[in-house]
Amino acid sequence: ILEKELTGIQSDLEEQTEKQQQRKKSSCRGKEKTVPAFEERREASSSRPVDHFGFNNDKTFKQRYLVADKHWKKDGGTVLFYTGNEGDIIWFCNNTGFMWDVAEELKAMLVFAEHRYYGESLPFGADSFKDTKHLNFLTSEQALADYAELIKHLRKTIPGAKNQPFIALGGSYGGMLAAWFRMKYPHMVVGALAASAPIWQFEDLVPCDVFMKIVTKDFKKSGPHCSENIRRSWGAINRIAATGTGLNWLSETLRLCSPLVESEDIQRLKEWISETWVNLAMVDYPYASSFLQPLPAWPIKVVCQFLKNPNVSDAQLLQNISQALNIYYNYSGQAKCLNISETATSSLGSLGWSYQACTEMVMPFCSDGFNDMFEPHEWNMKEFSDECFKQWQVRPRPSWIPTLYGGKNISAHTNIIFRVNSWWQLEVVTDDTAEAALETQWAMPEAGATGDGAGVPEEKPEKTWLRLGSSAKGSKWQRALRGGWK
Amino acid sequence: ILEKELTGIQSDLEEQTEKQQQRKKSSCRGKEKTVPAFEERREASSSRPVDHFGFNNDKTFKQRYLVADKHWKKDGGTVLFYTGNEGDIIWFCNNTGFMWDVAEELKAMLVFAEHRYYGESLPFGADSFKDTKHLNFLTSEQALADYAELIKHLRKTIPGAKNQPFIALGGSYGGMLAAWFRMKYPHMVVGALAASAPIWQFEDLVPCDVFMKIVTKDFKKSGPHCSENIRRSWGAINRIAATGTGLNWLSETLRLCSPLVESEDIQRLKEWISETWVNLAMVDYPYASSFLQPLPAWPIKVVCQFLKNPNVSDAQLLQNISQALNIYYNYSGQAKCLNISETATSSLGSLGWSYQACTEMVMPFCSDGFNDMFEPHEWNMKEFSDECFKQWQVRPRPSWIPTLYGGKNISAHTNIIFRVNSWWQLEVVTDDTAEAALETQWAMPEAGATGDGAGVPEEKPEKTWLRLGSSAKGSKWQRALRGGWK
Repeated sequence: ILEKELTGIQSDLEEQTEKQQQRKKSSCRGKEKTVPAFEERREASSSRPVDHFGFNNDKTFKQRYLVADKHWKKDGGTVLFYTGNEGDIIWFCNNTGFMWDVAEELKAMLVFAEHRYYGESLPFGADSFKDTKHLNFLTSEQALADYAELIKHLRKTIPGAKNQPFIALGGSYGGMLAAWFRMKYPHMVVGALAASAPIWQFEDLVPCDVFMKIVTKDFKKSGPHCSENIRRSWGAINRIAATGTGLNWLSETLRLCSPLVESEDIQRLKEWISETWVNLAMVDYPYASSFLQPLPAWPIKVVCQFLKNPNVSDAQLLQNISQALNIYYNYSGQAKCLNISETATSSLGSLGWSYQACTEMVMPFCSDGFNDMFEPHEWNMKEFSDECFKQWQVRPRPSWIPTLYGGKNISAHTNIIFRVNSWWQLEVVTDDTAEAALETQWAMPEAGATGDGAGVPEEKPEKTWLRLGSSAKGSKWQRALRGGWK
Repeated sequence: ILEKELTGIQSDLEEQTEKQQQRKKSSCRGKEKTVPAFEERREASSSRPVDHFGFNNDKTFKQRYLVADKHWKKDGGTVLFYTGNEGDIIWFCNNTGFMWDVAEELKAMLVFAEHRYYGESLPFGADSFKDTKHLNFLTSEQALADYAELIKHLRKTIPGAKNQPFIALGGSYGGMLAAWFRMKYPHMVVGALAASAPIWQFEDLVPCDVFMKIVTKDFKKSGPHCSENIRRSWGAINRIAATGTGLNWLSETLRLCSPLVESEDIQRLKEWISETWVNLAMVDYPYASSFLQPLPAWPIKVVCQFLKNPNVSDAQLLQNISQALNIYYNYSGQAKCLNISETATSSLGSLGWSYQACTEMVMPFCSDGFNDMFEPHEWNMKEFSDECFKQWQVRPRPSWIPTLYGGKNISAHTNIIFRVNSWWQLEVVTDDTAEAALETQWAMPEAGATGDGAGVPEEKPEKTWLRLGSSAKGSKWQRALRGGWK
């Protein structure tokens, strides 16, 4: 079975690569500016104040953005505005199929705005991450203000854009930004599509263990004994590490680039493995993709194939874990060894995000090892704060985001559609706005399908937006996309 | 006629003083803490971050606020939250009759929140105005964030307040803040009552000469030849100042505390007189009041009694101007001389406001000497910016407020009632929100009555709020005040 599965995976991979290339032809091409398809979008930048909220610092910096206007109809089309998140905007541009898919139908101009302190939009150039003084302007509020000024700039400078509706779009942190942007600047965008936006993963709005439980559920559903074996693996690692040659054995079995040398490395190893499972849950798409890593369709199912035997020895279990990890880290077969200090694409700005997580984006996570498959880990605010202070010389303000953006009390806002997708279910699935709840219901069937695939249309999640938008009944999506938000 | 008028004024003054004392018994008593009526409100303060929008500065300061809860009904009443403006909060508390008038009916708790950098709410104590670095946190956004955190604090600490509706109220800059607060923090307040809030006096949202034309109209309507004589007075001052003993004569005739010594003083003199007329227009109430200065009812009418003769000599005209100025500066008869560096109560923080006007609160004003009664004065942004830089080492950003708060595009917001009152007509009288327009219409008759008094009920403008709220038909006000905003 395994071999068959892997063969299937291989053909999936080929197919996926082909699809990707098709996609690339009609989308961003990163920095390969010599490729003809690059003509489909242009890269630009314009000046933003480093500090929108104070006048002592009067410096400006260049904010990068991408524009694709092949299908744009002056004085008639919609502008889809991607509120960039924590990474290089070209990477998000390459990975946001939905906008490209609907561009023609909407006669839309696509704009991808880069978030300050990521990619090339660095307020202080190479010094941007130098110290807390230079990092002081890395906040969601400053980013939203950048987007507001950019939209003003675009309306002014792009012929035919002045009076056209803009819609904010984004996923994950970018999805939060899209929703928050409509909340704070409703005069700038007629609405927002927020995908996988965990706007309630703050303070005590949801229990801190919700996320790890969802991840565990995904593994539980994807193969027999899968989550149990992962839960067992932590003890197995501890036991083997405690033996004389344990660290060497682990380093070799897991094919680590840097051998484990001290007991602290064991903790880092376990955190790296945990993060791998979390990432897999986040990209457990029903089709092959290469969002964080090149992966087959339903990657968790593939991983769980290696973890289906109960009652194996510690050594055997960890050998299986090693194979499972290789699905994520070495699906292409190119990796010579695995680096435990990396879990995702370097296009994501992990340094900047680490600062944001230590200031306002404080998202409490915890696990108990019983209702989830991870080692028990309490959320300790004081400890977290101390770590942040050690790393960044700042203290987090965990209640600020709910104070600023309203927590669960968001019923005054309109035209925000929260979409549950298959990899992050912590977003707004119910709330007190009938509208949001309705639209989230629309998207639920697909979300509920994560892990088992039953009844799931084999299409890209992004396509669902389009499908809903085009349904005969006519949904909010449809009206939104066709300019009904005005 | 004049003598009769003045006798009338005197009795008005006595009546007004009596009314004031009645008011004081049921309202703030400033710092006279030994007065029994003080028991009606308590003064408190709580900690706010100096910088809500950055994490490099982790200092906090004490924000002062006043609470009056005599009529407060736990778990049933409304909380009326005054978003303090540019001055000592006790002064606003003493001058906001409306909230006191409706407290009993609404079983309301009244809260008056002080704006940072004013009164006793100084982020850096005595150093707060030291330099642009210390002033960096004096912005409307920081003030709104203070109010959001204060409301959170009140909900947490005041028994029975947790789930009660809060309504933001304010006048003038405080009215803008009330409206903006509902726009940016709709989860904190169910609605806002914004009185005399010129939220469109920015950039090019209204022509820069509108305000001076309105002031002129008030004088034109309040007596024959009144505005013409004021228009003539500028030339008369120039001509007399150019004579050998002109400066001395002017200093004595106008009873100035510091004699005019050089030609630059003439410019200062004219600006001081202009500002006096503007202030009179702002407090041209149909009843005696002491908002900026102790004044009779319809003070502009009283002033215009001195300015009704056409074709008088320059010297006579300026003697008349002197008498007119004395209505504003010396109605009580106590002033020994007039100080041209002061035009209003010292409770207003003119230093802080000057900084705000030079940063984000850039309100373009101009006059042409033809459609208005002032000397021609163009709005010159560059000149203004240079002056700001000279005074504060900052440059204004005139387009920021419209970008941030939406300019005229405010239709996405709900539950904001803009009220035109008699002294400031630059606020939102029409806009694209049906709701706001409707409510503004409600308030229009009174506003239109400024200056001639025809058909104006002789009641305090604040009373109109109450009257509208209690009308048989039931208005938004009524629903708002009775807790219909939820």
